Amino acid sequence: MRNILTLVYKCSVFSKSLPAVTTQYRFNHQLQQWGSNKSHRKIKISNPFRDIIMADPKIEEILAPLRASVKEQGDLVRKLKEEKAPEIDIKKAVAELKTRKKVLEDKELSLAPVEENFDRAKMEDLIKRRFFYDQSFAIYGGITGQFDFGPMGCALKSNMIQLWRKYFILQEQMLEVDCSILTPEPVLKASGHVERFADLMTKDVKSGECFRLDHLIKAHLEKIKSEKNTKAELKAEIEDILVKLDGMNADEMSALMKRFDMKSPISGNELTPPIEFNLMFNTQIGPSGLVKGFLRPETAQGIFVNFKRLLEFNQGRLPFAAAQIGNSFRNEISPRSGLLRVREFTMCEIEHFCDSKDHPKFESIKDTPMLLYSADNQEQGKPAEILTIGEAVAKGIVNNETLGYFMARIHLYMLAVGIDPKKLRFRQHMGNEMAHYACDCWDAECLSSYGWVECVGCADRSAYDLTQHTKATGIRLAAEKKLPAPKQVEIVEAVPNKAAIGKEFKKDAKLINDSLAAMDSAALEDLQQKLENDGSYTLSTQNGEFKLTPNIVSVKKTQKTVHVEEIIPSVIEPSFGIGRILYCILEHNFKMRDGDEQRTYFSLPPTVAPMKCAVLPLSGNAEFQPFVRELSQELISADVSHKVDDSSGSIGRRYARTDEIGVPYAVTVDFDTIKEPHTVTLRERDSMGQIRMPLTDVPVVVRDLANSKISWAHVEEKYPKFEQQESGKGAAA
Amino acid sequence: MRNILTLVYKCSVFSKSLPAVTTQYRFNHQLQQWGSNKSHRKIKISNPFRDIIMADPKIEEILAPLRASVKEQGDLVRKLKEEKAPEIDIKKAVAELKTRKKVLEDKELSLAPVEENFDRAKMEDLIKRRFFYDQSFAIYGGITGQFDFGPMGCALKSNMIQLWRKYFILQEQMLEVDCSILTPEPVLKASGHVERFADLMTKDVKSGECFRLDHLIKAHLEKIKSEKNTKAELKAEIEDILVKLDGMNADEMSALMKRFDMKSPISGNELTPPIEFNLMFNTQIGPSGLVKGFLRPETAQGIFVNFKRLLEFNQGRLPFAAAQIGNSFRNEISPRSGLLRVREFTMCEIEHFCDSKDHPKFESIKDTPMLLYSADNQEQGKPAEILTIGEAVAKGIVNNETLGYFMARIHLYMLAVGIDPKKLRFRQHMGNEMAHYACDCWDAECLSSYGWVECVGCADRSAYDLTQHTKATGIRLAAEKKLPAPKQVEIVEAVPNKAAIGKEFKKDAKLINDSLAAMDSAALEDLQQKLENDGSYTLSTQNGEFKLTPNIVSVKKTQKTVHVEEIIPSVIEPSFGIGRILYCILEHNFKMRDGDEQRTYFSLPPTVAPMKCAVLPLSGNAEFQPFVRELSQELISADVSHKVDDSSGSIGRRYARTDEIGVPYAVTVDFDTIKEPHTVTLRERDSMGQIRMPLTDVPVVVRDLANSKISWAHVEEKYPKFEQQESGKGAAA
Repeated sequence: MRNILTLVYKCSVFSKSLPAVTTQYRFNHQLQQWGSNKSHRKIKISNPFRDIIMADPKIEEILAPLRASVKEQGDLVRKLKEEKAPEIDIKKAVAELKTRKKVLEDKELSLAPVEENFDRAKMEDLIKRRFFYDQSFAIYGGITGQFDFGPMGCALKSNMIQLWRKYFILQEQMLEVDCSILTPEPVLKASGHVERFADLMTKDVKSGECFRLDHLIKAHLEKIKSEKNTKAELKAEIEDILVKLDGMNADEMSALMKRFDMKSPISGNELTPPIEFNLMFNTQIGPSGLVKGFLRPETAQGIFVNFKRLLEFNQGRLPFAAAQIGNSFRNEISPRSGLLRVREFTMCEIEHFCDSKDHPKFESIKDTPMLLYSADNQEQGKPAEILTIGEAVAKGIVNNETLGYFMARIHLYMLAVGIDPKKLRFRQHMGNEMAHYACDCWDAECLSSYGWVECVGCADRSAYDLTQHTKATGIRLAAEKKLPAPKQVEIVEAVPNKAAIGKEFKKDAKLINDSLAAMDSAALEDLQQKLENDGSYTLSTQNGEFKLTPNIVSVKKTQKTVHVEEIIPSVIEPSFGIGRILYCILEHNFKMRDGDEQRTYFSLPPTVAPMKCAVLPLSGNAEFQPFVRELSQELISADVSHKVDDSSGSIGRRYARTDEIGVPYAVTVDFDTIKEPHTVTLRERDSMGQIRMPLTDVPVVVRDLANSKISWAHVEEKYPKFEQQESGKGAAA
Repeated sequence: MRNILTLVYKCSVFSKSLPAVTTQYRFNHQLQQWGSNKSHRKIKISNPFRDIIMADPKIEEILAPLRASVKEQGDLVRKLKEEKAPEIDIKKAVAELKTRKKVLEDKELSLAPVEENFDRAKMEDLIKRRFFYDQSFAIYGGITGQFDFGPMGCALKSNMIQLWRKYFILQEQMLEVDCSILTPEPVLKASGHVERFADLMTKDVKSGECFRLDHLIKAHLEKIKSEKNTKAELKAEIEDILVKLDGMNADEMSALMKRFDMKSPISGNELTPPIEFNLMFNTQIGPSGLVKGFLRPETAQGIFVNFKRLLEFNQGRLPFAAAQIGNSFRNEISPRSGLLRVREFTMCEIEHFCDSKDHPKFESIKDTPMLLYSADNQEQGKPAEILTIGEAVAKGIVNNETLGYFMARIHLYMLAVGIDPKKLRFRQHMGNEMAHYACDCWDAECLSSYGWVECVGCADRSAYDLTQHTKATGIRLAAEKKLPAPKQVEIVEAVPNKAAIGKEFKKDAKLINDSLAAMDSAALEDLQQKLENDGSYTLSTQNGEFKLTPNIVSVKKTQKTVHVEEIIPSVIEPSFGIGRILYCILEHNFKMRDGDEQRTYFSLPPTVAPMKCAVLPLSGNAEFQPFVRELSQELISADVSHKVDDSSGSIGRRYARTDEIGVPYAVTVDFDTIKEPHTVTLRERDSMGQIRMPLTDVPVVVRDLANSKISWAHVEEKYPKFEQQESGKGAAA
């Protein structure tokens, strides 16, 4: 249900339930290509897929009939669409296509080699124990779908955002804005959220307890399916229903509720028929209770309503991009899956306004290899494939250069923050998923223990939003573009009789004048015809309808020489869900030491690691203290976040503690530090390698390591290896 | 009204209407002291008050009787308090004290030399025109009290926050958290916000329009006062009322409404009696409508409810500080004064939890001179005075080292972001302003065209908040401290009969057990007495009262050897209102070029300036383009935010445009740049001085200038001066 609804408004970063679907990649001979990549003009792009396991021909043999079955159905859907078959037929065929896709993907997943030994419970324990994040207001019993980020989670998030600012705001010279969260109703009416941003739910008629309808039906049917005495036939039918559930409307779900006699799973009470529940939190702005407002469900609208100011800031020129980092709110009926479906979340959104979809910097990223799962491949039962973004645009798989440019930039950002390239794909929306006005849409999805998770949406939204706000406010949100040469045009305009309008419509006069001025040529044509033929025209505005007669308004056509043309720019919208990316980063970087399941840690990239460095005195010996203090001061001066751990545990135990929170480097002050020249050991988390270096070099070296200016290999080359055991037994303690 | 209410919960960063009060500082011979400051141990602190204008003896002569009058009343208040006079008498005397203080301060302000020619309208025009910030949703008519930050305002804000992180999180090794905005009701009941975070308002009985009561009364009385036929006697009385208005309660205000027959100033309709309006935005969490929630009115509570997790993260040790940066919301009845009173705002709050109020780093800042306006000076009619924070703590003016340490750090941060030290004072809360549990509270106030504005509160809140949440949840929010030596203590504890409790109270059993476990010794004493004498005890909890009998609970006393003691730490809370500071920074840095009132600009410190650098090709000549592009790329690599302005204006006009948005440095690419060695001019905004330097040096030099690693003087020394006129006429264009 929500899938379709949300997609109309927002490119799906947070749409629908998480896909249980998991696709195993197939990597064929394309892979070799990357080895012999032609030399790049400026940027050397390494191939992150180098170590991907090749597809097993035996597995492909098993999958072949399933692939064929998807293809067959995909072809049917296509045919029906070409023939403009009745919508109900197309819908049925699409549902069947989804069923077959799911069967294929489940099989792929079941056959995939178990890559590693991921233990979610163990990771969640670490996240909770070291307070990366945890449920909000737990001492008051907690609220589902709300999380507080502790010091480590907060620092990780803040580093991710800082890097995002660098990747996008700074490097792409975007205009960052920071807009209000409380949003008055008319804005979200225009964007369509008030009417259609909803999920279906049902209520216990006695207790009032609410259930998200699709979740309830799913749980109910799965229970029946698992019962011993359920017949095979019914089981098969239920399986079919479960697959189609996503696309069902209220009536279809209501019928299921009746047919299977569903009651509240908690109390056994009767349930109400399906209710559309709007997912926005509402409140009143001001004390009168008359101004209805919502907490924004996305940050994008703040950018659209400021379009004119931003265009002016950019001296009237296109293209430009505006960006916003901030919190959005969705009143989920039943939040679940930890950080993946929450009520309050941080988004980073970009609206790139352009009149041409070529991109001047496309050349610089065109050789980036990416795992693309096109709509075509999805419909044809084919796996995702690796292509350079240049090829994808050239072949028309990705609609245009600007969209492709942003996809590549998203890809590079995701790798920089620690997403495993083997667990990152771009999935294209299929025709039936995409909003009617959008011309292409790709989601960056990360593979997690919950399946593929949509983390970033990247949509070409055409001129939809600016057009909607123009209609609602009567203020033209458009840019002017200088024509190559002046041209003669016929100007059609509404000529309002302002005196008559003022007299008749009083306080609405301004709105009516603005609405007339904002009419496009089709509307003006209609106005003229209605006035001539019917003697009146009904104008629809945000304050209702107004009947206009020929004494109130006329339509004038004149010839004019124009030097500029007015354009409503297209919008490319990359939209990042920071919490989801953060969760996937944690999953992709959760590790255990060989042979010691208890020693778990996060191999976070230094750039985003919550702290860059730990400072550990070997023991509580007082002689170490001045060195520890001095080093801490110097690290502060170098802007290096760090933690001094002078607790009493053994050095090995303290290393393990810093590993747990993903600290990439640890400095140990020991008895040799006291002697001149003062030296310390520096240890790298992932390799556990140690070197011995002068104390005074530490701040700059760690800073440069943390900023990826130098590599650990470089440090190992420069300084002598330190062979002491981690237990610290060898040290003169 | 709000003054008193808010202060109970929050150290007043955002309390009450802005003081119209403006005090002129008096700087007497103390000033000389700083010249001969004794040498400091580590940090060299410069004296920001060096150039402050000395007090004029003639002015002091005029003020002397007014000062004496304040002192007289201050002495009376003190005497009444010492004598424990009836509260009503003290209240009256305090109101009279405030009247006299205001008369003194108004006179001081009127006699103060006009320091500069500040034109608020001109500044606001610039802020709007270059989109630092502007009203939210303006195309929809806008909402008062909500603002959107455009690219320059957003960058300024983000740089202020980044510097705040460095000053506090990094340098003080604080634990940063990021907690939920949506807060369930019980949390804010415990903190006291649900009951008492309110303003008085009145409603038009017909239209429902609301007015903040004190604003309405003030406007009404001022109108009467300004009318020609109002008698002098009434005018004097009104003046007296206006001064006392702040301290009036609902009944007193209601009486005024009746006496002066107040009606709606808009419609002339009748008004309702005073209504207490809670300033929190409310909503429902989840779909049932049963979980009432609020948008947090401050970020602090998120830290308090996470106290146990944070203490554990800090390995159980005190002291530690947690900090949070985020948005808070207050549903103001009538927002006003631009960014100073808004409905949605960013705060940076610190909660420093400690068991001792000495501070290990106090020595490092003790010689910081600050302008302090103590409660004592306020009561005695004396001006604010300059003291080092060390002196202030030694003399007992500031309660303790930790409070003093944070005040000095706040002071240093404020100077770093561009607050004029001559317009920054710390005002101590007087006894009647301070919450009953607080032992000291100082506000950092900035002088603006709206008067002195509270920008940062710094309060010693003792153990109030943790105690409140402990009471509400039954979960002890306390730390354990190791005793120097084990000691024998008598342990008094409630021994619940868990079986009996479970049977009798069912779902409330856990709450009752928790509440019993959380009882302090006084409560246990009471419990024992009631059980013995009355045969029962009434336990109050968040879910109501429960009657406990001796078969349900008993009180046991035992001797025990303990090694730790439990302490509920004290809290020092510095709380920053980022929007208010940002506004004051803009006012303090708004400048006009000598002799050209139209050329206005912001002399923002490079650290917080929205962009560090402008890159200007002298003209549209195509030969400049590769140099501009290359330089822009190199600046990006050095993380230097910048703006390329290749528009067609003259170079002088483009300098003016970059000055307007506070860009501190501008690089001009001209015909000499094309020649080898490639050089450019670098111009500094405030002095408009220019030097000529090699193109390749630019990124590093500008980065170091922007980070305050080098000074402009240093750059002028290193590179040759460039004497070209700003008009660019001299250039070979």
